[in-house]
Amino acid sequence: MKAAVVNDAGQPLSRPAVMDTNPERGQEAGLETMCETIRRAVAAAQLTLSDITAIGVATPGLMDIKKGLILDPPNLKPWKNVPVRDHIARVFGKPTAYQNDANAAAYGEFWVGAARAAKSMVLFTLGTGVGGGIILDDTIIEGEHSHGGELGHLRIAMPDHGRLCGCGARGCLEAYASATNVVRRAREEMASWRGPASQLQAYYTANDDEFTAKIIFHHAANGDELALKIVDDTAYFLALGACAVIATVDPEMIVFGGGMTAAGEWFRAKIEHNVHRFGLPYPTQHVKIAFASLGSDAGFIGAAGCARLLVRTGGGAQVHS
Amino acid sequence: MKAAVVNDAGQPLSRPAVMDTNPERGQEAGLETMCETIRRAVAAAQLTLSDITAIGVATPGLMDIKKGLILDPPNLKPWKNVPVRDHIARVFGKPTAYQNDANAAAYGEFWVGAARAAKSMVLFTLGTGVGGGIILDDTIIEGEHSHGGELGHLRIAMPDHGRLCGCGARGCLEAYASATNVVRRAREEMASWRGPASQLQAYYTANDDEFTAKIIFHHAANGDELALKIVDDTAYFLALGACAVIATVDPEMIVFGGGMTAAGEWFRAKIEHNVHRFGLPYPTQHVKIAFASLGSDAGFIGAAGCARLLVRTGGGAQVHS
Repeated sequence: MKAAVVNDAGQPLSRPAVMDTNPERGQEAGLETMCETIRRAVAAAQLTLSDITAIGVATPGLMDIKKGLILDPPNLKPWKNVPVRDHIARVFGKPTAYQNDANAAAYGEFWVGAARAAKSMVLFTLGTGVGGGIILDDTIIEGEHSHGGELGHLRIAMPDHGRLCGCGARGCLEAYASATNVVRRAREEMASWRGPASQLQAYYTANDDEFTAKIIFHHAANGDELALKIVDDTAYFLALGACAVIATVDPEMIVFGGGMTAAGEWFRAKIEHNVHRFGLPYPTQHVKIAFASLGSDAGFIGAAGCARLLVRTGGGAQVHS
Repeated sequence: MKAAVVNDAGQPLSRPAVMDTNPERGQEAGLETMCETIRRAVAAAQLTLSDITAIGVATPGLMDIKKGLILDPPNLKPWKNVPVRDHIARVFGKPTAYQNDANAAAYGEFWVGAARAAKSMVLFTLGTGVGGGIILDDTIIEGEHSHGGELGHLRIAMPDHGRLCGCGARGCLEAYASATNVVRRAREEMASWRGPASQLQAYYTANDDEFTAKIIFHHAANGDELALKIVDDTAYFLALGACAVIATVDPEMIVFGGGMTAAGEWFRAKIEHNVHRFGLPYPTQHVKIAFASLGSDAGFIGAAGCARLLVRTGGGAQVHS
């Protein structure tokens, strides 16, 4: 768990306080750890609770955003139906906003990050999984069942052709483009590679325990053909995800965040190239493709932004369903 | 072109006035025909222009919704950059709303049709092509480049596997599920059919000039196995489109409209079955799948609804980008 005090301009006033979640200790202990992380963040900013206007909380997994509940999070067993928002609001006596973590990260990038000049944006977060968030006109598209922007499970291939996703379905974007699946595709590609001798293959043979997406991107940047194929395919798959959000919400900007984007401009340009190839001609001529700028701070900055919205609008613009 | 006077409860006060567009006569003549259709609609309702509060206009094709322009419509050559909204507003001296035709149809179904009780909905219109519209909380998702809800070009198969679409791309939903493509798939299926003797095949051999989606659905309803396969596949493809909008905007309701939905409940149930099979488990347990209820009136009723919104909100809630 991570927390920081963020000012009205979207700037964190200290490095975030970080505590282990220890989900196995149960939800009571989890909620207390959440409160303690918040207290430490306030102390780290050299403030007291009376200086804090509102609190924003963002969590992963299955939730009811409107009711402020964690429902049944796969990564936080044995938690179930945890009233996160109301608990925090009661303990601290502050207006408390609650949001999905990827939506919060999207709102952070929209508020003060890569999309701060845009009126609408979609974020894809590339990590162990693929997450997403959609912001249109300062409104987070939460969805009627809190599943708005579940972009990792946007299908880019038909179920009968598609790769198997961790969610049990086939063809999800996540099954192609998460860091985990980039590594998996690389292993598969190496097994059948008939191109020129690959440094990536040599590295893998010596270090199969430390074989990561970062290593693959590093070798691709150095011109390794096998690694380049993996990266090219990744850009293609991500572009198919981008094309789907263009055909649904047609945003001004599409932002990609997460470890792989450290590769930089050459990788961004590959995604953009594929969006132009495979997207609807008119909107893809104009859509801006960018990488996130807030790094791993996007989530808590965005959660603070949601708290700020709550105070400014009474929650109207923030709760969209 | 079609027009009718619609009251504040969403009821047309007469059957619509209808006039030929004759696009080849140019855009000046087209705009005058549009005005004349509106005048005839007012007369058909036994009203005068002073009884009309506002006007809503909806057109197909490439447009700039915010600026009220038809840009470069494939079906209305040689029109280009036609200032539809401002022309109508000037001629009639009334507040004039402008909208994409499928968005207007979606708004009609949302306002007083199949989704009138829903807070958010997505419409798929199944005709010669596949159109779409997304309404979230009384807001039409127009998109930053007026391409919000272009659901016919949502891709359901990868470009290298996908069927060729009229737009030039591969894998678009429209290339599978428009009435035109249902017929095309049926022709292909008949060529390779090895199942039991098919009445559909017999009909086709005798009437290949009058072979329509309606005929295919009719034979499927009568238990013809070949026709049933085409319908089952159509339901599957439409469900993949529905799953994509669930993973992006997660609406309360998904509505299908157009000629094929005349098939009724058994076809709706097939779509729903596939949504449950292939969609994100939690939201698909709750999403409502329905058929449209306004028929071909949805467009002008929805356009009137947009005009009503314009007057009530000053356009704020209607113009979403």
